[in-house]
Formats: sequence, structure tokens, C-alpha cells
Amino acid sequence: MKKVLFATTALIATAGMAAADVTISGYGRFGLDYNDANATETNLTSRLRLQFDMSTETDGGVTLGARLRAQADNTDGGTARGASWNGARFFATYGGFTLGVGNIFGGLDNAPGLYLETRSTGTGVDGMGFNSLVTNVNGGAAGLLDEYDNYDQYSSKGAGQNGVEVLYSAGDFSGQLSYSKENSSDAKRTAGHVAYTWNDWTAVLGGQDSNQAWEDKVFFAVMADLGQYGVRFAYADNDGIDKYGLYGNMDIGAASNVVLWVTYEDAVSAADVTAGRFDNSLDGGTKGTSYGINYSYDLGGGASFEAGAAETANDQTQVQAGVAFSF
Amino acid sequence: MKKVLFATTALIATAGMAAADVTISGYGRFGLDYNDANATETNLTSRLRLQFDMSTETDGGVTLGARLRAQADNTDGGTARGASWNGARFFATYGGFTLGVGNIFGGLDNAPGLYLETRSTGTGVDGMGFNSLVTNVNGGAAGLLDEYDNYDQYSSKGAGQNGVEVLYSAGDFSGQLSYSKENSSDAKRTAGHVAYTWNDWTAVLGGQDSNQAWEDKVFFAVMADLGQYGVRFAYADNDGIDKYGLYGNMDIGAASNVVLWVTYEDAVSAADVTAGRFDNSLDGGTKGTSYGINYSYDLGGGASFEAGAAETANDQTQVQAGVAFSF
Amino acid sequence: MKKVLFATTALIATAGMAAADVTISGYGRFGLDYNDANATETNLTSRLRLQFDMSTETDGGVTLGARLRAQADNTDGGTARGASWNGARFFATYGGFTLGVGNIFGGLDNAPGLYLETRSTGTGVDGMGFNSLVTNVNGGAAGLLDEYDNYDQYSSKGAGQNGVEVLYSAGDFSGQLSYSKENSSDAKRTAGHVAYTWNDWTAVLGGQDSNQAWEDKVFFAVMADLGQYGVRFAYADNDGIDKYGLYGNMDIGAASNVVLWVTYEDAVSAADVTAGRFDNSLDGGTKGTSYGINYSYDLGGGASFEAGAAETANDQTQVQAGVAFSF
Repeated sequence: MKKVLFATTALIATAGMAAADVTISGYGRFGLDYNDANATETNLTSRLRLQFDMSTETDGGVTLGARLRAQADNTDGGTARGASWNGARFFATYGGFTLGVGNIFGGLDNAPGLYLETRSTGTGVDGMGFNSLVTNVNGGAAGLLDEYDNYDQYSSKGAGQNGVEVLYSAGDFSGQLSYSKENSSDAKRTAGHVAYTWNDWTAVLGGQDSNQAWEDKVFFAVMADLGQYGVRFAYADNDGIDKYGLYGNMDIGAASNVVLWVTYEDAVSAADVTAGRFDNSLDGGTKGTSYGINYSYDLGGGASFEAGAAETANDQTQVQAGVAFSF
Repeated sequence: MKKVLFATTALIATAGMAAADVTISGYGRFGLDYNDANATETNLTSRLRLQFDMSTETDGGVTLGARLRAQADNTDGGTARGASWNGARFFATYGGFTLGVGNIFGGLDNAPGLYLETRSTGTGVDGMGFNSLVTNVNGGAAGLLDEYDNYDQYSSKGAGQNGVEVLYSAGDFSGQLSYSKENSSDAKRTAGHVAYTWNDWTAVLGGQDSNQAWEDKVFFAVMADLGQYGVRFAYADNDGIDKYGLYGNMDIGAASNVVLWVTYEDAVSAADVTAGRFDNSLDGGTKGTSYGINYSYDLGGGASFEAGAAETANDQTQVQAGVAFSF
Repeated sequence: MKKVLFATTALIATAGMAAADVTISGYGRFGLDYNDANATETNLTSRLRLQFDMSTETDGGVTLGARLRAQADNTDGGTARGASWNGARFFATYGGFTLGVGNIFGGLDNAPGLYLETRSTGTGVDGMGFNSLVTNVNGGAAGLLDEYDNYDQYSSKGAGQNGVEVLYSAGDFSGQLSYSKENSSDAKRTAGHVAYTWNDWTAVLGGQDSNQAWEDKVFFAVMADLGQYGVRFAYADNDGIDKYGLYGNMDIGAASNVVLWVTYEDAVSAADVTAGRFDNSLDGGTKGTSYGINYSYDLGGGASFEAGAAETANDQTQVQAGVAFSF
């Protein structure tokens, strides 16, 4: 009585039926996390993501579709959690234009050159708090300026922002502009980016304008894909807090890849602290230099071994190793 | 690693396997909502529905199956919500008989001639509160006699009623009888309908008997499908509140359809207000005449453009436009 | 626009794609439950289970995968509930070894010879509280020593334990060892079993060691599969409470099967009550002899008619009848 979905992109169109389709995909990952900031330093970390993509094409050539995700995470020190379903993102695509509605990607968060060149898009198995991002300052996911709070991004297990966005790409150019508004808080955010590629190099400029405190951001990155090697520089002004990042990645042999990163985050200005604009007690201790390394080994079949280590500016050490697979 | 489900009804039966199957379907829709009763008058409105239908057939020719739905709605003024999963409806079908158990359709709500002849089954993109239904009185979805509270119906994102129902159809006749009982409140509802079609005409008689206040209902409708044109008249006695509706729809050209509707709802009787049976302060202001229009344009591929406008008796104006697609 | 998943195990491998796959399966069941301990004695009982299994195989022959489930239950006296999603279980299999991570099966709960030889793995349509299990004492699912609380097991609609386990099988031998730790409560459980089969007989030894009160368990079972007949004896020491069970099942004709069971549960020792180790007021009245019968008739197509009756030691009578189908 089992149903096995076919691992193929074929689409059988029968008479009288529209070419609408549903795609199921996702990934699983699990491993061990050592974090000397946790009471119990070594824990299991895991995630299962299950994603449904639906789309159809109108007679006029517009693709209409939506995405819905479930995610089951166990990342917080041994506490297990059941799967949560997120809010839907809808889209309409015509040529190089895409309109997105609902749980939007966000014009800044979706910029190329922001996330790490790894499977977790951060360090190790679960990303380790994504301290490698230059837009993630003042304590990151655990602190006051949470990357998940202070600029719009696609939520994989929450409702997201209910915004609207336009994406455009033509040849070597791509860009995005997003807008969201919360009726309850009257928060309004406009975010966007442009990216241009010439030869092996890509330059990115992005940012966000918000009517809320701490949320204005400017982001710049330049990166090169030199075949076996890759290098990237990124900078962000996070409403007055500068953060710089330098990133390198290298293929080793047929199956291995190593990513190295170092970031420097400026202190919150004394004037801002005095004015109560930032609360030093919540700064997360990420001021200064953080660095990390990620090692990936391709196991075949869409699976890989992932290991990583990171040291944050406040001497927190985190090490992870595990496996990841896509389906 | 993507799985693309096949857009076909073919079923490959291999030796030693039962012919059980799972079907994934659903729809997406998104657009803009203008409502002069909201503090922020213009908002995004959207819904993604994902539906799983499972069934198998016994050696004796009985089809056993179930339906489960997820729904992600963003309809209430800019607040985003993640997907919710509903309660399951189970069924057993043999010939013209179907037994339903669990999250039942409900004998009154499932009557033909009740909902509007539109994609949203109401007006515009999201139905606009379904004021066009004659069983929806005294404030409708927002008021005291909530259509979703005072008679049994299938819940697309809640648990539903855990009831039982029998559906029967033979030739031009169809009927349904449902029963539900809540152990916590001791609420008991019996609902049903019969429908008969002759030539282009269909007549429907339905109702509900309940041991709870305000829940006794009688529903009558007669409608004609005249090819390019359709017309319908409906009436309901909602435990003392009469409501009448007149509905017309017309195909225009190859791809357009227009639906017009007008309803008249009687005031709550003074005796009922005096007796405390109805609370005028919660009556939703729908007493009197409401009307609306819906325009649909077929985009192909199972998608359409939908626009609508409605004016309720208390001078609330709502206008919507957007797209909808099925998968 | 419907997608019908193919009832086949075929897998089309196209160039450049990994052989990762997703399988959707599950079951539905519904029927009537009579329980003279309920205020309303007769109620509907139903469950829909929807299961996603994902897996891929590495070049080295290791299978990596995960399982996620949704379950919608209506078993508690007429109150309907929507579907809940559980925590993910991840696994890596190589040869006879399997490593499990996350929402683990649990080394004791997954032992052969523990659950009843029926479709519900208990009595009737929904298992009737699983009083037939010798590891379920002192009131079972409703009481102090809840089977679902006092030893690790896979949770079908909750997050589960976030543990780790190893399963091994080679020829006639199989075994399992599991470990879980909750950071919040510091609860630590180690559980396991070994099973050996010779000719028609299988012997099983299992248990759990915990740092929490009432959770140490020893389990033993011996059973024979004699073709048309099956017989099983089971015993458990539940941290001082002995429980014995005797079970028989018989095929009748081509499509029927009957299962009979009787269990005897020792009283909690007076010393334990005096010491406050057990609370007699919560003992669930299952001390003494309980017994039950289950009848199953194969309807074809993966469906069956299921009926059962059980009498617990405290004179609670429960009778159920309904249908079940797999997909």
C-alpha cells in the first residue's frame, strides 16, 4: 500500500488536464553539537524539512505557484520539538520578473553574498547561530538585534511577514525589492538588493529602510568564483554598527570542500548606549573578531558529511559534526 | 532530488499490491482587499490549501477513504498565519450511498444552491464574509450567528464536529442527513437536505434541528442552469430571522463570467430582543439589503483572475481583486 | 488538476539525479466505542495517520533517511481534534546495523512480543488503552504509570524523546539499545532488548534503566508462530509491580483472525504506598485480572473489519467495532 513518488522531472500531460504539478522535496540532517556556552555542552542537533511546491502555467505564459514548508528542529539542548508548518509564499513569474506575496524572501535576506557557502548556509550542521553574516550583529540569533527579527526574511516554520516583493533578473543583472507592513505594530520595512556579475566576479549592494529602531541596514559584498577557489568580502552598516567579513572556500580532491571565515564587529557607540538606543547588557558579546571553519565531504546520493567549528568574539567555542541529505 | 508528482489519473497496479492511492490537490489564491470597515483599509489577502485524499476499495466493492487538509490563510488585515491542519473526514461509499464520519460536511451546509456560483464560493478573492448566503444572518462570520458556529460544516483548518452523515444519490435525486453531538456541551444537531433536478431546474429543501438556541434552520432554493445564463432564488428561516437571496450568473465570451447577487435580511423581532434571545448590539448590522458582484476571467492552466465588490446593509463596502489557481 | 500518486514501487532514475525518494503511506480507521466508564458510553472513535518516509543511499551503501508523521485522533468521547505533526526520526542503515536519532523507537517499546497481534496493536479499533501490555501497569494510559510516559517510545503526534539508538539484526538474532536524556529534567533512560528465533519460536528479553522513579523495567516474552495458531507468554517487572500476560491467536477460514488475551497485575506493595512511592488513588484499578478478545475480517484492498471487547480488573467494560484501511 506504499506510494513511492518518482524521482524524475517528467510530467505526463493527459488530455483535458492542466499542467499543474506538486513537487515534494526537502532535507534531513543530524549530528552532535558541542557548545561551551550550554549547561550541557554536548547535544544532538537535527532538522527535517519537508517542502511542497505547487505551480501552474496560464495560457499567457505566467507561472502561478506557492510554497509551503514543514520543519522539525531539535537544536536547543536536548529538547525535542514536533514539526511546525509555515506561512505560504505565493508567486507569479513572467519572463525575468517574479512577484512574491505572503511569506516573502525579503529583499535584503535574499541577497547573494550574504550567507556562507556551506550546506547549512552557516557553520557546521545547523549553522551555529549564523554569526558569519555581516548583517547579524549585537548577539545575533540570541541577542537584541536578532537576524530573524530585524529584517524581513522567509520563515521556514513560522508565518513570516505577509509582504510583497518583486524580483528581476536579466543576463548578468539581478535585483529584488520587498515591502512589508504589520498592522498591529505599524512596522514598515522596505528592503532590496542589486547584483551584477562580470567574468568570475559578482558585486552586491543591498539594504533595508524601516520605521523601527535598529533596523536600517546597508549591505555590500564582492565575491569571485575562481573554479577550485572562491573568495568573498562583505560589509554591513547595521544602523550604526559596522561589521566586516572575509570568506574563502576551496575544493580539495574530488569530494571535499573547506570554507574559512573571519568577521569583525564594531562596538556599539557610547552615544547610542547613553541614549538608551542599545542595551549593552544584551549585546551578546559578539563585538570584536569571530572566526570559523567548515568541512564538507560528498557522500554521493545527495548526502554529505558536515563538520565545523567556530569561535565567537566573546570566546564561545562551538564544534559540530554530522550528516545531511536531500530528497 | 526533486519529486514531481504526475499530473495524471493513471494508476499502475503491480502484483501483490492493493489499489490504495493518495491524491494531493489544492489551490492557491492571493490579491488585494479593500474594506472600509478596517482601520487599515487595504490589505493583502491570500490562502493556500493543500489536501490529501486517501482511498482503497474492498473486494466487495466498498470504497473506504479519508480526507485531510492544511490551510494557510492571511485574510485579517496584514497579520500572517502559518498553515493549520484540520480533523479528518472518513467515508465508506457503496453504490449511491456514502457514510461519512468525523469532520463531516454537514447536511445543511452541503446543500446545493447555498453558496455563490464563484471560485471562492463567496464574493471576490476570499469570499468577503459570505454575506450572500441566506443561512448567514445577524452579522455573519463576524457576528453572533456565525455561519461557522451555528450549523455543522466541514472545517478546513479546525477539528470540525466529529459527526456522522449519510449521503445518497440516484439519478436526478440526491439527499443527505447528518448528526453531531458534543459531549462537553451536550449540543446535538441533526441536519439534512434533499435536491431534485428536472430538465434545467433544481429544487432544494434543507434544514437543521438543534437543541441549542438560534440554531434551528429551514432552507429552500430553486435554480436553473440555462447554458450561458444561470439564476437562483434562495430563502432561509434562521430560527425566526428570514433571509432571501436572488442570484444571477452569465458567461461573457469564451473566458469571462459575471455573478450578481442581492439579499434581504429581516430584522430580529422585538419580542426576541426583549426576551434576550438576540442581542442587538451584536447583530452585525446586516439587517436589510446587501448586494455584490463577482467577475472571473479564465487564464488557462486552472488559473483565473477574480474580482468582486459587495455592499452590506450597514454600508460596509468591500472590493477585492486577485488570482486563483488549482493544482 | 489532481495528482494521483502511483501505487507502485518503481523508481525512475534519470541522469544527474540522486535516487532519493519520498514515500507517503498511512492508515485510516473509524468505528464505535462503548465504554461504561465514560459519561456518554457510546462514542465515535477514529484516527487518520499520514506518514512521510524519506531516504537516499550514499555511494558507500549507507542508507540515510527520516520519518515524519501526522495523526488526527478522535478517541476521547466525542471531542474532535485536528491533525498533529510529530518530531522527526532520522536513521543511517548499513548492513544489519541501524543508527536512529531524534524521535527514537525506544529499546524496550520496540521489542517483539510486547504489543498485541492485532491491527491496532491493542484491542478493537483504537487499542482500548493497551491494557494487554505487561509493561503497562497501575492504570495505564490514564494513570500514574502511563505507558506513554515511563519508557521511551516513538511518538506519533508529539515531539518524542530526542534520543539515540542502535538496532542490529543478523540471521535469527536481533537487538536494540537506546538512550535518551532530557536537559530540562535531567531524566536519563537506557533501554534495550534482544530477541532470538529458533524454528517456530522466538524468545525476547528487554528492559529499561532510568534515573527517575517507577521507570526501571524488565521484560520477557516467549512466543510461537505455528501457522494457523500463535501463542505468546509475556512478563514484566515494572519497578516492583509484576504483570503477566497470555495471548493466543488463530486464523479462521480464509479471512478471519481471532486474538484472545488475559493479564494479571500484582498490587502495588504496601511498603511502596506507605513510602509515598505509589499513590493508590491514582492506580487506575488495573490490579488483578483483565482479559479481552479481538476479531478481524480481511475485506481486501488493505482494509479489514475490526471488533473487540475487553474487561479490565476494575470491571470496566469496553466494546468496539469498525473498519481500518491502509494506503
